Amino acid sequence: MPYPKPTAAILVIGNEILSGRTRDANIQALAQKLAMRNIPVGEVRIIPDHQAAIIDALNTLRPHYTYVFTTGGIGPTHDDITVDAIAAAFGVAVVEDTDAVARLTHHYGAENLTSARRRMARIPQGAHLIDNPISAAPGMKIGNVFVMAGVPNIMAAMADSVVPTLIEGPKIYSQTISAYVAESRIAEPLADIASRHPTVDIGSYPWIRNERYGTALVARGTDASLVNAVAEAILAMVEPFDTNPTHEKQGYE
Amino acid sequence: MPYPKPTAAILVIGNEILSGRTRDANIQALAQKLAMRNIPVGEVRIIPDHQAAIIDALNTLRPHYTYVFTTGGIGPTHDDITVDAIAAAFGVAVVEDTDAVARLTHHYGAENLTSARRRMARIPQGAHLIDNPISAAPGMKIGNVFVMAGVPNIMAAMADSVVPTLIEGPKIYSQTISAYVAESRIAEPLADIASRHPTVDIGSYPWIRNERYGTALVARGTDASLVNAVAEAILAMVEPFDTNPTHEKQGYE
Repeated sequence: MPYPKPTAAILVIGNEILSGRTRDANIQALAQKLAMRNIPVGEVRIIPDHQAAIIDALNTLRPHYTYVFTTGGIGPTHDDITVDAIAAAFGVAVVEDTDAVARLTHHYGAENLTSARRRMARIPQGAHLIDNPISAAPGMKIGNVFVMAGVPNIMAAMADSVVPTLIEGPKIYSQTISAYVAESRIAEPLADIASRHPTVDIGSYPWIRNERYGTALVARGTDASLVNAVAEAILAMVEPFDTNPTHEKQGYE
Repeated sequence: MPYPKPTAAILVIGNEILSGRTRDANIQALAQKLAMRNIPVGEVRIIPDHQAAIIDALNTLRPHYTYVFTTGGIGPTHDDITVDAIAAAFGVAVVEDTDAVARLTHHYGAENLTSARRRMARIPQGAHLIDNPISAAPGMKIGNVFVMAGVPNIMAAMADSVVPTLIEGPKIYSQTISAYVAESRIAEPLADIASRHPTVDIGSYPWIRNERYGTALVARGTDASLVNAVAEAILAMVEPFDTNPTHEKQGYE
């Protein structure tokens, strides 16, 4: 992997994504939040609500990445099996957390804290709670694994409380040049730019707008001046085709 | 895995998805097309444009699923490394395909078939072409692996030519009942329905609309009458909370 540490992996747990019923909204949202701390996502897996699959994926990913984030399967219903699977992956018991019970009691009221709702206070032994400002039922952190809700606005709120606590990665500078030119017309000079700048990651992403072909060219790296040099070379390369490309910079002050 | 054969896995190859730059659109589209042939997706992985990562993921997935679909990385630019990685995963050479060259020549005109464009005629030895009715550059099939474009409309066109050729799975019946009731209020009777119908997969997906909580309850299985019985039980369960739930059926004639 070309990524510097820290790195992250995302494990999406949900039959509804695999069946095509629901289009995932969490991967991009979480990747963007992690990018703000320069933590690249090295891999994403989407797996079913199935205990063996969760244990296997989690135990494969967690030694390889600095952080692993799971989404989904921590609600009150019978198909919410993530907490038990994660506890099994770590070889620990599931316990009811006093603080989590207090949060749920405060949210629902003691008289409405049914056993189904109280189920959301169960956490792997040794885990720490992640705040859920929206519906109280907490996420949790165990080892380097962050267990978060699947509902997008709750996932986003949990990520907002977690991401600022993570180790920040080396600053990544990025410039995107988007021009009306088919990528096949610039592939050769682009490959030349890439070969002259092996430490800058250069991506080429074709698009079509109003039936015209265009390409977004993204240069990313930890050396601001090298990324700048690549962006200048790309601008010169597309100029004969589009004299007014869009040009965005990220990471520069 | 609870899935009957045939099964599928999807391997999304693309730094732009992992970085959060682009929200994937192919997973849901492909999963829905496969569902039309009753082929469940058992797993999705999203990995970078990195040869070792592609080889490792592909060789892990292809023995475990009936079909593996890759998306992304088959264009003309230096960062399009999928074809070479897949050939390496299968231990075969990359060759220029005569038919693919003919298709590209027809599309671009002989005078415009630059070496960058001609690069899109390279396929793993022994692979078969998949039609690309939009921009000519073909996908390919090798063994049980289908190599497709990452651009969503091209991916969709390739899937439309491939999916009808796949072995059809056992017919899956599905009913979805969506009601204004918080899932924590029905978790217990729902678990009871689930335990009485172990061969029907029952999913519970909370939603919020106009600041009111609701839950979509999805029953899926290969026995139409059992799925029907579960749906009836769910309707009776939500009736005290919402006398007018939405109710959709899939797979029934």
